[in-house]
Amino acid sequence: MHYRNFDTTTAYRQLADYAAAWKGFNFKTDLVDGRVRQCQAPMAAGLMFSWAAKAVDDGVIKLLQGLAGEQELIAKYRALLDGEIINTGEKRKVLHQLLRGEQGQPVIENGKNIGEFYRGELQRVYEFAGKVHSRQLTGSTGKPFSTVVQIGIGGSDLGPRALYLALENWAAAEGKKKLDAHFISNVDPDDASAIMASVPLEQSIFVLVSKSGTTQETLANELFVKDKLHKAGLDSSKHMVAVTSETSPLARNPAYLDSFYIDDYIGGRYSSASAVGGCVLSLAFGADVFKELLAGAAEADKLALDPDILKNAALLDALIGVWERNFLDYPYTAVLPYSQALSRFPAHLQQLDMESNGKRVNRDGEQIAYNTGPVVFGEPGTNGQHSFFQLLHQGTSTVPLQFIGFTDSQRNDDVSVDGSVSQTKLNANLAAQIVAFAKGQSDSNPNKDFPGGRPSSLIYGKKLTPAVVGSLLAHFENKVMFQGFVWNVNSFDQEGVQLGKILTKKVLAGNSGDSALDAYSKMLGVGTK
Amino acid sequence: MHYRNFDTTTAYRQLADYAAAWKGFNFKTDLVDGRVRQCQAPMAAGLMFSWAAKAVDDGVIKLLQGLAGEQELIAKYRALLDGEIINTGEKRKVLHQLLRGEQGQPVIENGKNIGEFYRGELQRVYEFAGKVHSRQLTGSTGKPFSTVVQIGIGGSDLGPRALYLALENWAAAEGKKKLDAHFISNVDPDDASAIMASVPLEQSIFVLVSKSGTTQETLANELFVKDKLHKAGLDSSKHMVAVTSETSPLARNPAYLDSFYIDDYIGGRYSSASAVGGCVLSLAFGADVFKELLAGAAEADKLALDPDILKNAALLDALIGVWERNFLDYPYTAVLPYSQALSRFPAHLQQLDMESNGKRVNRDGEQIAYNTGPVVFGEPGTNGQHSFFQLLHQGTSTVPLQFIGFTDSQRNDDVSVDGSVSQTKLNANLAAQIVAFAKGQSDSNPNKDFPGGRPSSLIYGKKLTPAVVGSLLAHFENKVMFQGFVWNVNSFDQEGVQLGKILTKKVLAGNSGDSALDAYSKMLGVGTK
Repeated sequence: MHYRNFDTTTAYRQLADYAAAWKGFNFKTDLVDGRVRQCQAPMAAGLMFSWAAKAVDDGVIKLLQGLAGEQELIAKYRALLDGEIINTGEKRKVLHQLLRGEQGQPVIENGKNIGEFYRGELQRVYEFAGKVHSRQLTGSTGKPFSTVVQIGIGGSDLGPRALYLALENWAAAEGKKKLDAHFISNVDPDDASAIMASVPLEQSIFVLVSKSGTTQETLANELFVKDKLHKAGLDSSKHMVAVTSETSPLARNPAYLDSFYIDDYIGGRYSSASAVGGCVLSLAFGADVFKELLAGAAEADKLALDPDILKNAALLDALIGVWERNFLDYPYTAVLPYSQALSRFPAHLQQLDMESNGKRVNRDGEQIAYNTGPVVFGEPGTNGQHSFFQLLHQGTSTVPLQFIGFTDSQRNDDVSVDGSVSQTKLNANLAAQIVAFAKGQSDSNPNKDFPGGRPSSLIYGKKLTPAVVGSLLAHFENKVMFQGFVWNVNSFDQEGVQLGKILTKKVLAGNSGDSALDAYSKMLGVGTK
Repeated sequence: MHYRNFDTTTAYRQLADYAAAWKGFNFKTDLVDGRVRQCQAPMAAGLMFSWAAKAVDDGVIKLLQGLAGEQELIAKYRALLDGEIINTGEKRKVLHQLLRGEQGQPVIENGKNIGEFYRGELQRVYEFAGKVHSRQLTGSTGKPFSTVVQIGIGGSDLGPRALYLALENWAAAEGKKKLDAHFISNVDPDDASAIMASVPLEQSIFVLVSKSGTTQETLANELFVKDKLHKAGLDSSKHMVAVTSETSPLARNPAYLDSFYIDDYIGGRYSSASAVGGCVLSLAFGADVFKELLAGAAEADKLALDPDILKNAALLDALIGVWERNFLDYPYTAVLPYSQALSRFPAHLQQLDMESNGKRVNRDGEQIAYNTGPVVFGEPGTNGQHSFFQLLHQGTSTVPLQFIGFTDSQRNDDVSVDGSVSQTKLNANLAAQIVAFAKGQSDSNPNKDFPGGRPSSLIYGKKLTPAVVGSLLAHFENKVMFQGFVWNVNSFDQEGVQLGKILTKKVLAGNSGDSALDAYSKMLGVGTK
């Protein structure tokens, strides 16, 4: 297998040549029902990936299929599954897919079967949640737990929070909501203070999540929480569990009811399928719901093995994104779920994508000369229509779009107004936007003229269920992975967060050694309290 | 006064020439304490705008000052204040500044003093809120109101919601929290259903906000809410007020307790200082808090009249943004408040900026040949540091940054860990990030090398109070206005939202006339229920 820079491939040159001669895709004439019906790839849990409104023709598809072969994308994915050191910067395996199923060879290290270890830890999580739900475990005053509060930041916050919100209404409607969940992430003390003032402390269980056990924000918030519990006369060790690595200071610590383990092969932004997401979600909704989520993700991981890009939605989504980023030169992409339940899913994808592929060196640490990951942003529709869609329709730049939609609502609670229910209005808007962006509309008044040519994809399905959430989660993880393979970057480290941490420590120690940093610190009151 | 396209100005040519010879700003040598102390402009309510870490030197500042003069930015602002038809597309005055004070000539139209009209409506809002707080007004069963729910979308949602969240903790800590507030915006029925299931209906008052009285989402949600109230045996007319225009179907309608009026001169995204934000905020926090917010905004509006760009923070912020967008070619900007209370402020600014200046025609409706408004996105710090900051530090593109920070927390509830309180850690991180982005750090391992040269500004102050929130709100409104004047676009219409609305209506009526649109609609279940 060869790891080579994207711009050294034949496919890169061919795509660049094709783009140079490219006149654009003529949506006005070519986006018709036949194309819409045909340009779809199946995803896990019954979802479909529709790419009819992407600016790709047969020639582009053929070259992207060639690129997938030349960059050996499926072989690299298989190597990852089999436990190769894909995270070259930190010299680590990358095993988050193993959390949801065995798609490759068993990964054995020093005689330890890592898949079994992961499954064992999840099993312990499920049993723990069961004890909470059966009231075998209660708070220190004997009252049952009604609330779970996750303490974590970055991947220990954004993914789990997005998944919780994605399923909260579904669980309520299905009678599966067991505990309310809240999240404390920011080191801003107002975050922890407000949440601690709003939850019933006696009936709250806290899930402390830090793989290293040294995350500054999370440790500060842990002490913030413990202080409140102690002041309320509660025994914090009966109200707190840890999710961490076996080598962290949080492991096997009597300060916690229990600790659940992950290892260095689960990156923070890829950790939602581990105990990092599994603990809070199993407590909130029950282990069965989380298992369904994992099953949806596992099915997606399996589909991602197909070398035919027209049958592999994650691979196709990735390659179209590369076409847009490197050859159509679009520096951003917007994620637009037409589902209020996915309100924070764009924030999770923003981390997943930008932290994974926001890189300027290749996997061997050499600087590269082509663009990598785009800026990702988004808000749910129809809200976005009344906000930033103006720029998307009529701005001077083109932003590729990724829509997500579902036939059915989660709560089965709707009202009919003017002959249609709200869910129908929601989806009529979604369909209308796809076509409005693609085809535009000519008007003799340029202010009312829509140029069109704004490409979008659509992921759609019947209903946002746990399996569907798992399918979405894994789809985007695998998409980002494939793009990283194309760009020949390491999508699994994050050296870009280190410098800020180092400078922060220097500031707090009072020896920044930089006069500008001292001046900024003084302006912000650092050192005065 | 002349309205001319940006690329026809002398300043444009000079800036382009300057940029062509530009070697970049040398942060490593030139960002020192003296520059940090010097490069600041005062803002309203005691805030400061620090631009030391922006990539501008004396030459750029001089040319930007020239641009401000040549494009007559202050004169145009004065014309706006005096009631000139600045919204050329819709042939309307632009009078949101008038909501918070009289900076220009009185605006009289058909004998009506519009400032007096605005003040009179706000006074009615304050009196109404007072009656709710004094329990002179109660729900239909006689119980006092404990909860206010705003029903609105776009500018009727994002701004008011961001401001409510900005002040919720401050109000709680100051003993000024009077009602809990919730927001229903999306036409997704799960949004309204979940909120209606979570609020105490008997004690809830609903604020229905639609200037036209015809917004599809808002009317659907109104009926959703009324249906729930009626099913709970409540008289909805005793639980609902409207904020609308005097000519809308919602005006003087016995279905509501009262109606408060705005007019066509208050654009949706500029309406937070009107009853659109004033009603929900006065109910939640009391009229005095909202008045303080308006006073902060009025002070900012006044400061924005200064022709010296070094003394006019909104103007300077705008011009530096133009330098970055048109001459350094950065297509986006990130808003990064180090304050959990500002968690949704970036979403408000995203609408404000992208809907105002996401335009490809000038104010006369002619197509233009230069870039206008950037993509705006952001999340609070330190959360973002553990997410997308990787790309900001080490991605292949440069994203200009706008930081916001405060010396003090809002809740005065903090914990000391490792020798510092969380608020200090928060601000140490903020200071460290500014310097890390600007200066970077060389490393022999390119994967650990930080190129630096990533420009940022910082708005900072003592504490996020109502006056400070008003100052921030107006600062960004005025910044966006000045940029619109530079680009010669109409920042006050939004024709880009119309096509989607038209197509949606066609879909719902069953006659889209487009085979692709029919195919998408079918995939999404439209027409099947």
